[in-house]
Amino acid sequence: MVNKRILSGMRPTGRLHLGHLVGALNNWVGLQGEYECFFMVADWHALMSEYENSKVIQESIFDNVADWLACGIDTEKSVVFIQSQVPEHLELSMVFSALTPLGWLERCPTYKEQMRELKDRHIATYAFLGYPVLQAADISLYKAGVVPVGEDQLPHLELTREIVRKFNNMYAQVFPEAAPLLTKVPRLLGLDGRKMSKSYNNFIALSDEPEIIAKKVQSMFTDPKRIRKNDPGHPDKCNVHHYFSVFIPEMKDKVDHWCRHAEVGCTDCKKILGEHLMGFLKPIQDRRKIYTEDKKKIEDILECGRQKARDIAQATMKEVRHAIGMPQCPIK
Amino acid sequence: MVNKRILSGMRPTGRLHLGHLVGALNNWVGLQGEYECFFMVADWHALMSEYENSKVIQESIFDNVADWLACGIDTEKSVVFIQSQVPEHLELSMVFSALTPLGWLERCPTYKEQMRELKDRHIATYAFLGYPVLQAADISLYKAGVVPVGEDQLPHLELTREIVRKFNNMYAQVFPEAAPLLTKVPRLLGLDGRKMSKSYNNFIALSDEPEIIAKKVQSMFTDPKRIRKNDPGHPDKCNVHHYFSVFIPEMKDKVDHWCRHAEVGCTDCKKILGEHLMGFLKPIQDRRKIYTEDKKKIEDILECGRQKARDIAQATMKEVRHAIGMPQCPIK
Repeated sequence: MVNKRILSGMRPTGRLHLGHLVGALNNWVGLQGEYECFFMVADWHALMSEYENSKVIQESIFDNVADWLACGIDTEKSVVFIQSQVPEHLELSMVFSALTPLGWLERCPTYKEQMRELKDRHIATYAFLGYPVLQAADISLYKAGVVPVGEDQLPHLELTREIVRKFNNMYAQVFPEAAPLLTKVPRLLGLDGRKMSKSYNNFIALSDEPEIIAKKVQSMFTDPKRIRKNDPGHPDKCNVHHYFSVFIPEMKDKVDHWCRHAEVGCTDCKKILGEHLMGFLKPIQDRRKIYTEDKKKIEDILECGRQKARDIAQATMKEVRHAIGMPQCPIK
Repeated sequence: MVNKRILSGMRPTGRLHLGHLVGALNNWVGLQGEYECFFMVADWHALMSEYENSKVIQESIFDNVADWLACGIDTEKSVVFIQSQVPEHLELSMVFSALTPLGWLERCPTYKEQMRELKDRHIATYAFLGYPVLQAADISLYKAGVVPVGEDQLPHLELTREIVRKFNNMYAQVFPEAAPLLTKVPRLLGLDGRKMSKSYNNFIALSDEPEIIAKKVQSMFTDPKRIRKNDPGHPDKCNVHHYFSVFIPEMKDKVDHWCRHAEVGCTDCKKILGEHLMGFLKPIQDRRKIYTEDKKKIEDILECGRQKARDIAQATMKEVRHAIGMPQCPIK
């Protein structure tokens, strides 16, 4: 039987946006009922990609955690902590590094893909190559039995399982092989129809003010073939229509009809979407204020999470050091 | 002006032998007068090469530290500690990893050499490639201004300096560029004339019993052209003569004469060498007993060293986290 502990994380590399909400956060909130959840601010992982612009990390931590809490992460049920505050992540990662052949990492398809995609940054670094090893340590430190993953993350999880198998065979049966919890989430494109990304500045942040949201929605790309209001449109090629299907599914068919029959123009359509998004984000932003107005609340939550995470991490590393034949810390 | 702090370490991968003594330990002892020394049991480094046989690490730690102390490492003057007990080594190593291009490591000449030499072991691992990054962190964590190195270690130190320069330029001037303290040490070959190595079992351990030493010295390779006692020998081709020049330099010329004129046979020559080595190692072995008979003494020394090392390591990482924009630990 799989254990019911989950580890998942986000890299603090900027403000959270609608893509994070529908891609991960909503899912996290839902998992809390069924699983014992560990939600990690993956600041070491953030450093790997953001080391040339690292100030963003510190700023994003408070901002992101405020969003997590505002969206429904409940610290009575789940442990929220910062990766770099639990030193055992790097210790287990070091152990896994010692037994991970370079070839396993060089062949990792997501590594090759990232190298192609992030051409604007210098990420051909030693740390970045080892990304999946640290990820294996993150998961295994808490002996998580389940990891929520998107389809594209499956190769990483397979590498985790391979590393864990090698450790268990070589030393002692310490770790479970984490199973994927495949999560089908809607893929949200950016306002301009490209991939949603901080560097394209083509997203709606969870903390955007109403007037910003209105402006951003009005700037969204629609069907390029619908030039005049009277031209019939192709909702299947319209990003605004896709947003309707994700955020106001009950209006999806109506908007489809409006568009195909040129009954409602893009500007009006966007207005409806914008107003819905504002209304939808309002309670999140109200809850968010509770935390951003009193930073100490988040500090306390993170300190409490650090202690809970660390208790488990230390117990695991004690087992690991014993299994390998490394000294305990302190030695007695 | 260079600061007078030194960091040096040894990997706990088996018993220490005469090669360690003349290659490093004697030098360490001498440095204690002039420098503030940090001597590190490099157990993470040991894991990189010994992960398939890792039990040796734990065993070797107590054994090696007993030898260090017996040979004259003075914990009133120097800090003796275990690397894996100071988590900041891996934290700084992670930071350095994020800014170290893969190419710097792949081109490192000592890496390429080791890959050729250690063909019997599977060291084409992720950790082993990053060896010089961890070494850079070891040195920089204590802001050591000086590192004692053999000529073959110079490329590693150059890499340390390069990494430190990149960090200082990118974030803030936190680290000194450690200068090499080039140490000319006699190179001691193994009993069989090959490189001295644990896997060849061709060494005299500092803790070998007298009768073992006598036997091992008698097994040493000498000039292969001197077959009979009456044949004149070639001391410059004789390993025993080389040992004389290292351990009994005052007898070097006399032995040279004996050999070239066939006045003394190899067996007698070895007897003299063996007896000298026994006499030379006796006081070391007596002092060693103080520690091996009471393990707690070493535990206390290592715990005290851990605390001293950690105070400095924590202060450095506080600066580093501030410079990068990573959260402190704990956060407040």
